[in-house]
Amino acid sequence: MTVFRWLIADGFIPSTSQGQLESHESLCIVNPHSNDASVQIKVFFEDRDPIEGIAVVCPSGRTRHIRVDTLTGSDGRTVPRGVPYAMELTCPLEVGVQLSRLDSTQSQLALMTVSGVRVST
Amino acid sequence: MTVFRWLIADGFIPSTSQGQLESHESLCIVNPHSNDASVQIKVFFEDRDPIEGIAVVCPSGRTRHIRVDTLTGSDGRTVPRGVPYAMELTCPLEVGVQLSRLDSTQSQLALMTVSGVRVST
Amino acid sequence: MTVFRWLIADGFIPSTSQGQLESHESLCIVNPHSNDASVQIKVFFEDRDPIEGIAVVCPSGRTRHIRVDTLTGSDGRTVPRGVPYAMELTCPLEVGVQLSRLDSTQSQLALMTVSGVRVST
Amino acid sequence: MTVFRWLIADGFIPSTSQGQLESHESLCIVNPHSNDASVQIKVFFEDRDPIEGIAVVCPSGRTRHIRVDTLTGSDGRTVPRGVPYAMELTCPLEVGVQLSRLDSTQSQLALMTVSGVRVST
Repeated sequence: MTVFRWLIADGFIPSTSQGQLESHESLCIVNPHSNDASVQIKVFFEDRDPIEGIAVVCPSGRTRHIRVDTLTGSDGRTVPRGVPYAMELTCPLEVGVQLSRLDSTQSQLALMTVSGVRVST
Repeated sequence: MTVFRWLIADGFIPSTSQGQLESHESLCIVNPHSNDASVQIKVFFEDRDPIEGIAVVCPSGRTRHIRVDTLTGSDGRTVPRGVPYAMELTCPLEVGVQLSRLDSTQSQLALMTVSGVRVST
Repeated sequence: MTVFRWLIADGFIPSTSQGQLESHESLCIVNPHSNDASVQIKVFFEDRDPIEGIAVVCPSGRTRHIRVDTLTGSDGRTVPRGVPYAMELTCPLEVGVQLSRLDSTQSQLALMTVSGVRVST
Repeated sequence: MTVFRWLIADGFIPSTSQGQLESHESLCIVNPHSNDASVQIKVFFEDRDPIEGIAVVCPSGRTRHIRVDTLTGSDGRTVPRGVPYAMELTCPLEVGVQLSRLDSTQSQLALMTVSGVRVST
């Protein structure tokens, strides 16, 4: 069975927040297909083993915008703030995946976003 | 007939604005071809059915930068502020598509942009 | 002869600036090849004919970061501030192309960037 | 042997910083493969010869987020602040590569990010 795979190299949830909005990262998925999409996520770090076994369902004809700090691996670990990370996503359907960061370390916010990069499986 | 298709997973029009510029998202299309391009847009949400039947024409040799909140589906619905959404665009011509966000929730603005991701049809 | 082609849908040079840095857009090209690269640029608008005949050389083993407002078409026209535009770039070599915006409309700057999207020729 | 190659056209480490965070660029690599990845980096400038011979290892199942100003070529040169540059990365494994800029020239930070663009080898 074909599986689609994407990489996102730069993940980082800032440790602190000021102003009205909390620093966070959102993993955004869109599924235009007629079946629900089951997305498997693996989170990589610089200095520790990956978090595996994160599974997210994006229903048919829906999008999901998920706070990265709510993702939980099969061993109960979550993505900590203030630690560089990266992601691999796999899915049997060709969904859209994108990661956006809102940084409110200082009183005015900054934004950046990137699409998952398709790689061969 | 070949149809090109793109996905954009992270759409969000901030609810509030401060300062000189209003928070908004712009859908940008460029058509370098010798025929006008008819782009069909479908907008996906987390908790409700998609908005369908949005049609935009980008004339030959022109660009269009369209405020997302002006897009209207065949049932009259528009994209609300403060609600996560995503987009699928389809077009018989290989145009360029890009979504940019200006967030002025706080008094200084933030920007982010992403190109539509080509997917197989 | 193969020609590479890229589209960038969202171009906009903000009209005003505050603070230390002027609002601007930079078109960045990198040429890792052993021959100089001649890049042809066409600029599209919403409400007027494209600017054609812009030619830029990126030497072998060099990058160029060019202020968009310095690009001049064969008819002498340049890209005005405060007007939405888009770009098509063509080159016989597979160079890298990227457009970045610095917006200092308000006293703190905002940044966004996007790579040119490869399209078939 | 197949080698993967990516280009990033817009690199620039701002000269100055204000506030809590220093202006910097981070080169982010993720390696989901079962072997360590050796990434070769070449840095291009507008007005001088490239820096060659930069080698970075991203271990199997790890990410690395590297400050660009710490990269050192075989001739001892590093990437200076305030000078436009660009990058070519090559690797025998299909890793993920992304460059992010934090600009704190003014007291509030701005962010932008871009993925490396895959080119043929």
